[in-house]
Amino acid sequence: MDFNQYLTEKKDLIDNKLDSLVPENREIPVITEAMRYSLFAGGKRLRPILTLMACEVFEGCEEDVLPFACCIEMIHTYSLIHDDLPAMDNDDLRRGKPTNHKVFGEGFAVLAGDALLNHAFETMTAIIANTPKPEYVRAMELICKASGVNGMIGGQCIDLYSENKSIDLETLKRMHGKKTGALITASLTAGAVISKAGQDDIKNIMEFGDLIGLAFQVTDDILDVSGSTEKLGKTINKDAKYHKSNFISFYGMEKSRQIAVELIEEAKQKLANYGNKGYYLSELANYIISRDN
Amino acid sequence: MDFNQYLTEKKDLIDNKLDSLVPENREIPVITEAMRYSLFAGGKRLRPILTLMACEVFEGCEEDVLPFACCIEMIHTYSLIHDDLPAMDNDDLRRGKPTNHKVFGEGFAVLAGDALLNHAFETMTAIIANTPKPEYVRAMELICKASGVNGMIGGQCIDLYSENKSIDLETLKRMHGKKTGALITASLTAGAVISKAGQDDIKNIMEFGDLIGLAFQVTDDILDVSGSTEKLGKTINKDAKYHKSNFISFYGMEKSRQIAVELIEEAKQKLANYGNKGYYLSELANYIISRDN
Repeated sequence: MDFNQYLTEKKDLIDNKLDSLVPENREIPVITEAMRYSLFAGGKRLRPILTLMACEVFEGCEEDVLPFACCIEMIHTYSLIHDDLPAMDNDDLRRGKPTNHKVFGEGFAVLAGDALLNHAFETMTAIIANTPKPEYVRAMELICKASGVNGMIGGQCIDLYSENKSIDLETLKRMHGKKTGALITASLTAGAVISKAGQDDIKNIMEFGDLIGLAFQVTDDILDVSGSTEKLGKTINKDAKYHKSNFISFYGMEKSRQIAVELIEEAKQKLANYGNKGYYLSELANYIISRDN
Repeated sequence: MDFNQYLTEKKDLIDNKLDSLVPENREIPVITEAMRYSLFAGGKRLRPILTLMACEVFEGCEEDVLPFACCIEMIHTYSLIHDDLPAMDNDDLRRGKPTNHKVFGEGFAVLAGDALLNHAFETMTAIIANTPKPEYVRAMELICKASGVNGMIGGQCIDLYSENKSIDLETLKRMHGKKTGALITASLTAGAVISKAGQDDIKNIMEFGDLIGLAFQVTDDILDVSGSTEKLGKTINKDAKYHKSNFISFYGMEKSRQIAVELIEEAKQKLANYGNKGYYLSELANYIISRDN
């Protein structure tokens, strides 16, 4: 199957599952309306697709992995809703649509984010209560850590207190490693763990995740400068506006592009042992630096 | 042991455990500083004390129950931080201290709330990964549900869209049942489940929880009108200010007091079978309507 066709197929699978995992709430419609607005706003589903891809590499059962993949997307979506709030990045546009608080107001946007985070854990816990497999618990543990104070939330804190400050390259990398990298890596490792991959393979896929996570962020910085608001569906030149350091301010455009390519090449070498089973994951690595949104 | 002495002892136990469960983060100090600010701002620890009390009634192991009790307090604290935000209740004062966003700014207050919710799940998941007892999973499931869209967050949504609107008594009760009652009841049932209480006992303690939860809210409404900001440590007459319906606007002061007493009497009858083991829980029920803060 062609890579784009593959992406579309997996995206549909994830969208359908998310639709059933976050149904409309008849009693309190506003909350699920706000949750679903951002959840179905046209995300690329990169993280849950990574989870499904790890499952394929390690020949796991897609049906087992899929709900965990969807929970990661819920957590990612909650982080975007809160990041866009006026008190944080103050963004009006996300994926070409008005941000959650622009549509539902700040109060409901805070609650919709809270609800998505809570729902992810509610969903995973219900699965574990029903089928208490240790690999499910381990996957939930990896996801929790990646989204917590030492992961995504920690990264967002570094981002928030770095506004209008000059930070060094090491801090920039640390910030992105936590803010974006941790959940990207956990998407892969959760899929690998549920698919019962061995310790060496999990370590290997974790390193792959760290490399593509960084390449993803370098590309985001490139697109922030060179992309178009129309294609990206979000405001460009944000870093300059908020006087934020990014990879372009450290390395310039040309060197940043080169770094992204090198990271992806290094990442793909991690897949060497998996042969054909790693094909789509390898294509996804290419996609991460060639995308225009 | 005297009831007040008992409360102090349990509060100390909970405070010490919370201190170890939410240690200062040396790498990103601001986030744990903000989390700990609200966590140690002088809360009554009502919910975790209820969990420990349920453990006593059903002769469970306090050491097993304590971390879950603390996670419930983390979730309660996150909800207070987010509820106090300008986009929600817009409160400057909580437990006699400036609210989280007044001290750390709105961005960090949102993140501190997120982090406490995430940390509660991270803590419970780590326990389950280490000791995969089904009763731990079941307790976590009860806690997740109580804090989610059909529990606390749902209740806060009803509260938010009811501002400046007239709501009927049924909606008011439903709102409080979700916003406050659900987590109070889950505090008890989580303690009972971990202590391996039987189905009938769990149902019984759940009914007790629903009754004291409602009495708690009626008393909150009474204190909002008749209490003092100094003793309560928060702004009074808030409901009138935001044109919110409360029990006083439906029943008047005298009848509201009577309802609270009746609810507590009915609740205490649920403890009849437990003899001495239910003594402190029964005293706590009395305390809920006699408190002045």
